[in-house]
Order: sequence, then structure tokens, then C-alpha cells
Amino acid sequence: MSGLGIGLIGTGYMGKCHALAWNSVASVFGDVARARLVTLAEVNADLASKKAAELGFARSTGNWRDLLSDPEIDVISVTTPNAFHPEMAIAALEAGKHVWCEKPMAPALQDAIRMRDAAKKSGRAAVMGYNYIQNPMIRHIRRLIDEGAIGSVNHVRVEMDEDFMADPETPFYWKSEIASGYGALDDFAVHPLSLLFTLFGHVESVVTDMVKPYPTRPLKDGGNREVENHDIASVLMKLEGGISAVLLANRAAWGRKGRIAVQIFGSQGSILYDQERMNEFQLYQASGRPEEQGFRTILAAPHHKPYDRFIPAPGHGLGFNDLKIIECRELIAAIGGQKAHVIDFEEGLKIERSVHAMAQAFAEKGWVSVA
Amino acid sequence: MSGLGIGLIGTGYMGKCHALAWNSVASVFGDVARARLVTLAEVNADLASKKAAELGFARSTGNWRDLLSDPEIDVISVTTPNAFHPEMAIAALEAGKHVWCEKPMAPALQDAIRMRDAAKKSGRAAVMGYNYIQNPMIRHIRRLIDEGAIGSVNHVRVEMDEDFMADPETPFYWKSEIASGYGALDDFAVHPLSLLFTLFGHVESVVTDMVKPYPTRPLKDGGNREVENHDIASVLMKLEGGISAVLLANRAAWGRKGRIAVQIFGSQGSILYDQERMNEFQLYQASGRPEEQGFRTILAAPHHKPYDRFIPAPGHGLGFNDLKIIECRELIAAIGGQKAHVIDFEEGLKIERSVHAMAQAFAEKGWVSVA
Amino acid sequence: MSGLGIGLIGTGYMGKCHALAWNSVASVFGDVARARLVTLAEVNADLASKKAAELGFARSTGNWRDLLSDPEIDVISVTTPNAFHPEMAIAALEAGKHVWCEKPMAPALQDAIRMRDAAKKSGRAAVMGYNYIQNPMIRHIRRLIDEGAIGSVNHVRVEMDEDFMADPETPFYWKSEIASGYGALDDFAVHPLSLLFTLFGHVESVVTDMVKPYPTRPLKDGGNREVENHDIASVLMKLEGGISAVLLANRAAWGRKGRIAVQIFGSQGSILYDQERMNEFQLYQASGRPEEQGFRTILAAPHHKPYDRFIPAPGHGLGFNDLKIIECRELIAAIGGQKAHVIDFEEGLKIERSVHAMAQAFAEKGWVSVA
Amino acid sequence: MSGLGIGLIGTGYMGKCHALAWNSVASVFGDVARARLVTLAEVNADLASKKAAELGFARSTGNWRDLLSDPEIDVISVTTPNAFHPEMAIAALEAGKHVWCEKPMAPALQDAIRMRDAAKKSGRAAVMGYNYIQNPMIRHIRRLIDEGAIGSVNHVRVEMDEDFMADPETPFYWKSEIASGYGALDDFAVHPLSLLFTLFGHVESVVTDMVKPYPTRPLKDGGNREVENHDIASVLMKLEGGISAVLLANRAAWGRKGRIAVQIFGSQGSILYDQERMNEFQLYQASGRPEEQGFRTILAAPHHKPYDRFIPAPGHGLGFNDLKIIECRELIAAIGGQKAHVIDFEEGLKIERSVHAMAQAFAEKGWVSVA
Repeated sequence: MSGLGIGLIGTGYMGKCHALAWNSVASVFGDVARARLVTLAEVNADLASKKAAELGFARSTGNWRDLLSDPEIDVISVTTPNAFHPEMAIAALEAGKHVWCEKPMAPALQDAIRMRDAAKKSGRAAVMGYNYIQNPMIRHIRRLIDEGAIGSVNHVRVEMDEDFMADPETPFYWKSEIASGYGALDDFAVHPLSLLFTLFGHVESVVTDMVKPYPTRPLKDGGNREVENHDIASVLMKLEGGISAVLLANRAAWGRKGRIAVQIFGSQGSILYDQERMNEFQLYQASGRPEEQGFRTILAAPHHKPYDRFIPAPGHGLGFNDLKIIECRELIAAIGGQKAHVIDFEEGLKIERSVHAMAQAFAEKGWVSVA
Repeated sequence: MSGLGIGLIGTGYMGKCHALAWNSVASVFGDVARARLVTLAEVNADLASKKAAELGFARSTGNWRDLLSDPEIDVISVTTPNAFHPEMAIAALEAGKHVWCEKPMAPALQDAIRMRDAAKKSGRAAVMGYNYIQNPMIRHIRRLIDEGAIGSVNHVRVEMDEDFMADPETPFYWKSEIASGYGALDDFAVHPLSLLFTLFGHVESVVTDMVKPYPTRPLKDGGNREVENHDIASVLMKLEGGISAVLLANRAAWGRKGRIAVQIFGSQGSILYDQERMNEFQLYQASGRPEEQGFRTILAAPHHKPYDRFIPAPGHGLGFNDLKIIECRELIAAIGGQKAHVIDFEEGLKIERSVHAMAQAFAEKGWVSVA
Repeated sequence: MSGLGIGLIGTGYMGKCHALAWNSVASVFGDVARARLVTLAEVNADLASKKAAELGFARSTGNWRDLLSDPEIDVISVTTPNAFHPEMAIAALEAGKHVWCEKPMAPALQDAIRMRDAAKKSGRAAVMGYNYIQNPMIRHIRRLIDEGAIGSVNHVRVEMDEDFMADPETPFYWKSEIASGYGALDDFAVHPLSLLFTLFGHVESVVTDMVKPYPTRPLKDGGNREVENHDIASVLMKLEGGISAVLLANRAAWGRKGRIAVQIFGSQGSILYDQERMNEFQLYQASGRPEEQGFRTILAAPHHKPYDRFIPAPGHGLGFNDLKIIECRELIAAIGGQKAHVIDFEEGLKIERSVHAMAQAFAEKGWVSVA
Repeated sequence: MSGLGIGLIGTGYMGKCHALAWNSVASVFGDVARARLVTLAEVNADLASKKAAELGFARSTGNWRDLLSDPEIDVISVTTPNAFHPEMAIAALEAGKHVWCEKPMAPALQDAIRMRDAAKKSGRAAVMGYNYIQNPMIRHIRRLIDEGAIGSVNHVRVEMDEDFMADPETPFYWKSEIASGYGALDDFAVHPLSLLFTLFGHVESVVTDMVKPYPTRPLKDGGNREVENHDIASVLMKLEGGISAVLLANRAAWGRKGRIAVQIFGSQGSILYDQERMNEFQLYQASGRPEEQGFRTILAAPHHKPYDRFIPAPGHGLGFNDLKIIECRELIAAIGGQKAHVIDFEEGLKIERSVHAMAQAFAEKGWVSVA
């Protein structure tokens, strides 16, 4: 059995993460053929060559289009800056390759629609990189909700906070340009939305507030420049099925490093989760003797599939990069035509429609329905 | 020096709490004369007599109006159901008594306005029972904010959650009647508002979502009755000075017992607090070596005034009832004409105006300014 | 029904705490007559008079022996420095008074034995001030253990840590003199022992290590003085019934303010408790589906008697001083000849024997049986 | 540059972990040549072949001795049951291979000594698999201690608890045989010792208590069998330089899954760490304004080397398997003759001597010096 042939475009944060996943997925899961790391593409041949050696790719190129015509390549990982996603993902799909594209799809909604259309037409697997939904804790939470462990869910709160924009002295850079997106909303909010979609369903309507904590930022060479988007966003939402939800995102939240805090309230119990402690979640069930009811802290364990593929002992902990390995295994399932736990381009587009609706609701100062 | 003469109306949850406070305030603080517990009023003479013996009042009555004309009484604690507050508080003020009234002021805004007017006219101390602002942790947080310990505050989130309405099988009772109020909003939201007012200032505008997790509730004798108000409320707000705030209240939140979680984000740091662990708060300051920055868990200690009046050792913990003793000491200061850390009727009215604006924003599905 | 007449000797940390308890116990519990605060004794008449006014005592004296002959006094609270306990407690018992004496009994074992003998002979209630056993959380833990909620207990760890001796620059004072006791052992270890006795039974044998983190301390006027006792003690123990236990005490533990951390391991589960978060404990039960097993954080609530006497709502929190009020109620039960949840002089003596055995085990560098 | 040639013996829990590490180390670190996964040995050829395909080894064998004579192999990973370590590790060293051997060295002290001797004679890198010392949190803690961030350390407590032996109904199996070791002591205690050695130095003397929570265990076919070793061990210790330490190990601790809790007390502060939350530690420093002192929770971040090699963003979390990748990188450094952060066979032997001394101290009921 020969494994999938892999092409990788981009070797930044997520490019390395994809390479590690492709490199380890067979060893971890033991039920798929080892992927062949065929060609790595970077902005120039020298960097590509250096990175290929590091990351274990057989060949390298300074021209990403070389991957399209290579018959040894079955899948292309697209991990370049967001603005390049549409061109690359569409070209890859049109060339008959499967695509694994980092989130979000594209700054412009029209481009995201084109990507979805290309995926549909191609018949290939087209999967977005939403790794947080792969956490065995999140997957177990979904199972619990489906089983009715907390009854009927009626209210959800999700917060996503980091502090990379928290320092007012951080000089102006592209993340504060409107061309890069709305700010906290698309930079961030897509992650909580991937969780909401996975656990509950789509967003139906929204009302939004957004804030610029620092209206200007210093320029490196002196002076200031006006900040064009919003580092903080707060959204009230209605989800499918009538669940009310709150999404709060702040990329200027001092002290928060990778927080995605989820609170789920149901008619029989509650569930809490925080990405900063990604190997545990909390479950409250309104059953048994009242005087011993409480939130139970449940540590990740082999029971929580597929944790067992990584470590046979409970409480020893997966890491962020491990989530990408799980996502990779799901992608392979999708490529094989099996049911897969992924956000594909169709679902990814719904996430982006939600984000654009949130921005519209802010502009219009009222509730907006998601198309 | 003779202490203040006290009249108490009502001996439920808060009535007992007031009695305990009046009984202990001199012993705890050591700088005020012992209060004289003169007369306790209850709905009938028997209950009043029994409770007076328990709570240490010299006399008792089944007619609260007896307190008005008693020259030995200087202050009247009003701890009856909310609907009675206006009549009693106004009568007490008109009789020249100082008033300590439990929150909220009144179900109807017009009554709250009348109470404020009566207070103004009387020249007496008229103080609301907002005990959470008295926590030495909250007082220290205010000091930190004032000192600029976290720079300029730009975003605040407050959640208030309990679970006394969480069980869908709880039979319909008065708390689900619209006559009792909007539900989570006034039942609860006044507490977080008291904290926001204390720490940051008034609310300027709001947009609200509200939810009925259980549209009907069973009747004790069979059948169901439609629930008339909302157990869950979510509000986006602008505060004075441009701070954006989020207020989330849920009285159907399984597992939450007395949660009032506050997150304060500033340009130089963040502060976290949760009432369920009321003897600690967390402080993040973006200073010092980055690799050792983190949220510091600070335990209540004699440094945090007036903790020292209760216990000379750090980390030993105050309780909920102790906050009322501190509030009582502040009330005595207000009566003495000193600067006091309290929510008076003027400020209390602003809280209630905010709540009514929230309800209006929900009805109108848009942003509403607070009058 | 006339309440008990109270005499109080000493108005320091614990004296005030006793006064607050006597003052509030009837109001809180509602089932006992209000105590009469008769006479307060201090080292001189002026201080006594001042403190009597503050704490609500009718009379005062500079001579504690005045209390012995006063027929209005039924109970004497002894809250003076430890060295005075034997003389005062014995005199009070011989005068026919009930005694409530702060822990520990006495620096010397022989004095503690004399106190126990006097109590036995008097037929009066003679109760030690071990307030931590009164926490509704601890009482509920005992109930759970008795019910077999965690099966058969086989191992226990208790840590008691504070940091008032942590600073090496703290000048030498009496707490570092051997005359004041062994250091961490008696200063502290008596509290964890009170919990072990309450939950499991007596200590049978021990082996001990002790440490002087700072062999000398500066003198206020320059120079240094050798420290005579040990700020850190670690003890391995066998309890009645074969339970193995570990007791670790450190009064030089930076950052620990009032930590008494208990870990209880049984054949069907585990229980955790930490005094710094005294309104919660954690329970793990090895039952139900393994994938949802976890430590449950249980918040103090009216279910956990007698929390309900203080507050009718769950999760709102008792404080350190409230524990003394519960202890006071138990003392009143003991005085009334009822079954009471207290450490009396007989049991208190066993605690002190255990402490002396620990010190002996350190001196002899081996295991020692407790007499 | 050609990478190291790898042979692997054993593919259980740790075998897979080694394979994953060898497979990823170059991609993660980017500064070493990719290892060549040459040959995998298992107990028979079929299993070996299957596992080689899964884990990416080029060849496989049912006879581990085949690895000794293969010139393509530079390093042999020994991950078989402990009893096989001496024979395999010694043979590998004698064949001129570098050795990476899982802990502990061997059940019998004499075998561990032979391993150390063989390593010394060979001049090859001989490194034990103590992965917990590789956690960037632990490495940063060491840096803080070395820098004097908490002053002079005077007391340390380490607890290692899991619950795989907690159920009394678990049938008797080899882990309860004395031939497999002392129980909690060597099963476990070697891990905390690796941390103590890394952070502070060697153990000088010990006194020990051990407990059998379940004296017998059921046999699968009925009846019971006497348990031969101890699931719980408690040890008081003196370390080099006079630090007092406590080591508590319990493999029958319900609810504990991978706990290694460390408490370090110094003259200027304290440090806390718990392996169950391996991406954070807590630091208390007695500096700055007292009213804001507290334990700071510090999340793993790129500052904490080599976290940055895995993830460029803070707070996103490493996993257990990532620690093995770091260990692998350190092993490569050791092989290259560079200073490496590892426990080699010399140091590993000292750990095992400490364990044997602990068992002796229990047998002799007194303090024992470590040879």
C-alpha cells in the first residue's frame, strides 16, 4: 500500500505544523500508509530547499505551481498568508489535487465562495484547518451533548482571547489594516465558530459591538497611524434550533495566551472547557445526591478517542501539534471517501458568512440574519 | 457615646443578615458605638416576638408603622419583598429615619424615582444593600484601577450565574411572573451593575438578548403555565468614558451557585475576580521579564482593608455575611456625614434605569440609551 | 430562658473571635438563648474597659481571677498566650465554670495532663478551640467517609503551611525560642491533627524530620541570634486502624497564607480539601462511566449543615469567624450535656501527646509510639 | 550531512514514543540531520514487520541481536520490559552503539552497576529516558532556581500519584510481584527523583514508610493472592546541600492520572508545578508591594526554550510525546559530544541507589544513607 503524496506550500507556523502532521500520522494511528513528502514550495528556491531538508520533503521548488502538474502529489497543504488561499486552493483543486487549507478561507467573501464552488466542482476533498475541533475533549463533549448528558442545550458562551495586540506600544503592522480583515472577528472568531458549528449548528442571526482599544499605534519611524480594524468584538447570536449564544473575542486581552473558553448550559447540566488547559474539561450533571453535585474536572484519557493512539496512559496530555495529526487523519478519511470529522469548504464558507454578518451588524447597529 | 437605635422590618434571608451586621459591627470595627437593636417588625406579632428574641431586639411589633414614631429608632432596615420597599422606605425617610434598604429599589421605575426623591428631600442617609461592592477584594481592585495598575481600562465582562431556576421541573412560582420583574435582568443584573458602577461608572447604552430556556413550567397541581419572563439575559454595553462592557446573567445555569465573574482588561494588564471564590482575585501586569508574567492569585489579607478588622492573619477568609458588616460600617459613616463607600438611592436609581433600558433594548431589538 | 453568662480572658486575635461568636451564636442558630457577655478580663483595667465597650461586655476587670467568683458567669473563654492556659483553665474549672480554651493546651505535656485531670474532676464542659473541624465542608467529608462514599480509607496526607516565618530578615522574636514550643510542630501541627482525629482517629506511631531554614535570625539592635526551634516539620505516621498518614508543616512557606491541604485516598475514591478555599472540597468516586470520572468541586451549600443557619443560598461562602460561631454552638451543646462535635480536653491531650512524640522521634531519629 | 541510523527494540508504550521522536526531531528542531530509521526489532518477525511499516523503519527483525552488527545503526533505543534492559543495553554499548534506554535501568542494583560500567568503558552516549526533566517548564524552573529567583531553597515536596492500582478488584498481575520491584518506589519514584536530581542534586539519606492498601488481590480464576510489594510509599529525605525533601508516591490514588506535584520553598519565594497541567507552573516571589503578592500562573510560551521550536505562539501547549522529542534532541547533542541536559547511566545509577536505600530504610525502620 503506497501512501498519499504530499505537496506543501508555505513553511511558517502552520506549514511546519502540517509537515509534522504528515510526517507522524501513520506512526500515531497505525492504520494508514505512510505519507510520501514529495515537494515543498516556498517563495524562493533557496528557502524551499533548506526547509525541505528540515521537514523531510524529497524535493523543493520556488514556484508553487510546480506542484499542480506533479503526478506524485495527491494532496496539497496550503499554509500561506490568507490572501493567497483562493488562488492556490482553486488551482490545486482544478489540477485534481485534494486540498488542506488553513483557515480562514479568504479575506473577501466572494473569494471564499469561489473556493467552495471549485471544491464542489472538483469532487476532491477540500478541508479547512480547524484543528481545535479535533481535540479529544471537544469530541467527547460533542458525544455527551448528543447523548443528552446535559439535557437540552439552551445557552452557550464562547470567549477567545489572546494578548498579541494588547500592548499599545506595539507598532502598527498589517494586522491593524482593514485589508487584513475586521480584526478580532476574522482573526479569531472563526475558531470559536468552528466549535459552535461542530457542537450545535449554524448561526442564524447576530448583533455585534466592536472596540478599538487603541485608536492609533506608533509607527516604527516615529509618528502614529490610525488603527483600521477592531481588536475586540462582542456578539450576541441565535443558533439553529433556538440556542442563544454569546461570542466574545479580544486579541488585546493581557494575560490570555490561547484562551478559548466555552460554557454550555443545558436543562440537565453544564459543560466547561478552556483551550489553555486543553487536556481537561468540566462536567456538571444535575443528578445524584444534591449535596455532592459539582463540576467534575475530567482529564484526557485513552477513553477519549483518539487520545489512545498517542498515549496509552490517562492524564499525560496531548499538545497543540497533536491536534493537527488528528486533523490529518480525518483528512485522509475524507480523501478515502469515508465519513470524516472536518470542516470542509462548504462548512468553512458558512463560518465566513457568519463573520461578515457580524461585521455588518456592527455597521448597521442592529440584528442581522446570516445569509 | 450612645449607639444608633435600630428598627428592622423583615426577617428573611436579608433581614437576618442585617440583624447579624448590626449586632457585630461595633465588635468588629471597634470604632463605633454599639448599635441598640430597638424594635423588630414582622407580619404578625407572634413571629415578630419570636424573631426579636432570636436576633436580639428589645421589642417587637406586628405593625411596621410602629417604628416610624419611635424616637429611640434612628435607622430602619427594610428587608421585605421588593414590592414593599417604596412604601416603607419613603415612610421611614419622611419620619426622619435613616434607611438601609435591600436591593433592588422597586419593580416599577416610577416607585424607584419616588424613593430617590424622598431621600433627597429628607436629608437622611438612604443606602441600598449592595454588599458585593464591600468585599475587600473589590475595594482593592478599585484601588488598583485608580492607581493605574493595569493602565487604561478598555473592556469589561461580567457574568452572574446561579442555578435556582435551572431545573425545568421546578414548578411555576412568582419568580416567573412578569409582575416580579424581567427575570435574570432585575433579579440579578443589579449586582453586576453595582460592581460596574463602583469600578467604572454609569451605563450609557445597551443592546440586549433574552431567553426563556423553559417556555412553560409545571404547576403543582398538574398542567403547565407559560413562563412570563426570561431566565437568561445577555447585554452589550457602553459605559461612561467609552469602556465597552458585556453583562451576562443566567439564573438557570446548572452548577453555578453564586458566580459573579468579572474580567477587566486594561492597556497594561488584566484583573479577574469570581464571587464563588470571594477571598481571592487575579492580577496580570505586563511588566517585568516576559517569561515570568502570569496571572497572580492574590489571597485576601489584612492589607486589603477592612479585612484586618475581622482577622489579623492573611488567607483565612471572610464570608458572605461579613460583607454586610462592612456595608453596615459604611452606612454608619454615611449617617455621620462622612464619605462612605455605598450605593445610595441616587446611584441605586441609575442602576434601575439601566435595567429598564436593557429590557427596552430587547423589546426594540436594537441599541437603547440609558436615560 | 436566660442565656449563658460569659467571661472572657484575653482580647487578641482569638479573644475577639470568641467575643464575636458569643455575640452572634443565638442570632445565627435561633435555637439557643442569647449569651450574656458579663465580664471581660485584660492585663490592666484600662485596656479591659476599652475592650469591654468595643466587644459588648457589661463589665471589665484587670484581674482575671475576678471572673472565678462571679456567679453570673457560667463559661470562661481562655484566649491568652499558651503559657497561661493551664493556670487559668484549671482555676476556672475548679471554680465550677465551663471552659473554652484556645489551642494548644500548654507548652509542657505535664501541664496539659493537669488540665485534662482538672476537667475530668470538675464534670464541666472543657472544650478546646479547634475551629477548623467545624467547617461544614469538613463535617460533610466526615459524613461521606462514614457512609463509605470513598470506600475504605488507606492513606492520608495533610499539609499546613503559612509564611509568617518565611522571611529570613524577620528579626528574632519569641516564636523562635524553644520555650515557646518545637516550632512548626506545635504552632501548627495541632490543627491538622484535629482534622485527622475528627476524620479517622488517633495517631499510633511517628517518624519525624525537622528543619531550620534559617539557623540564625537578626536581632533588632544588630547582630544575630541562633534560632532554637524548627520552622519546618515532616512526619510519617500510622493512625488507628492502620491508615498511613503524612503530616507536613511549614511556617516558612512563602505564598502559603492559611493552607491546610488534605488528601484522602480510599478504595473507592478520593477527597481533597484546602483551607485556603474553605468553601469547597473535591470528591472523586470510582463509579459511573470511566470516561466521565473526575474530581468534583463541591461548593458549600445549605445541604452542608449548619451552613444553612448562616445563608439560605448555596455558593455564597462562610468565613473563618463563622467557624467559631459553629464551635460556640457545639460548646453550648456540650454544656447542655448533649452530644457535641468538639475536641475536649481528653482529646486535646491526645493531640499534644502526638506532638511530643513527633519531637521525640526527631530527637531519636527513628519511629516512636504515641503514649 | 547524513543523519544518525536508528535501531529500536520494543514497540510498546515507550517504543512508539521513541519512534515518534526519532521521526520528528529534525523537523521540530531544524538544526540536526534527519535520523534514518534503519531497523526495528520485536519478539517475532511478523510483529516486527508490521510495526516497522507503521513506524517508518526500513527493515525489521525478530532477533534484536541483528541490530548489533549492523553498521548503518548508530544508536539503539531500548524500550523493552525493565528486566531486559541490562542485557540489551550492555550488548549495544559493547557493539559500539550509543544507547537510549527507558527508565529504570534494571530491577537489580548489580545489573544497573554493570550497565553504568559498560557505558563508561564504551565511551558512547548512554542516556536514560527521563522525559519529564525535558519539559520547558521544568527547565525554566531550574533556570529560576539557578538565578536565585526564590532565594536559597530549603524545602521540597514531590508527590507522584496515579490510580492504575487503585481498584481493589483489579486482579493480581506482575506489577504486584516483588520480582518486578518494590512497587510505588521504583515504578514511580524514579521520576520525581529525576526532577530532584535535575533541580537540586543527589539524595543523601532517607527514612521510608510503605503501605499495602490491599494485602491480597483476586486471581482471575478465583481465589486471592497475596500482594508482594507496596502501592504507596512515603519518604523523608536529605538532599545534597542540606535541603530537606519529601517524596510521596501512590499508584493506588483514585483520581490521580499523571500527577507529579512539586512544591519548592526558598528564602525569597516558592515554585509549584503539577505534571497534570504540564504547560504551566506557579511562581511566588516575595518582592514588590505585599498586597499584590501571590502565586503567578505562568503558561508555557516561546520564551521557555525549546517550546518555540514546536509552536511560535504562547499558551498553546506541548504534549507528553513532545517531551520525548526534546529528550531525543538532547541525546543527539550528547552523541555529538556536546553538553546535554540528560540523565546518563552514571546519574541513572544514583537514582536507583536512592530507591534501594529507600527500601532498605523501610525494612530497617530507620534512616539510611545512600551509598
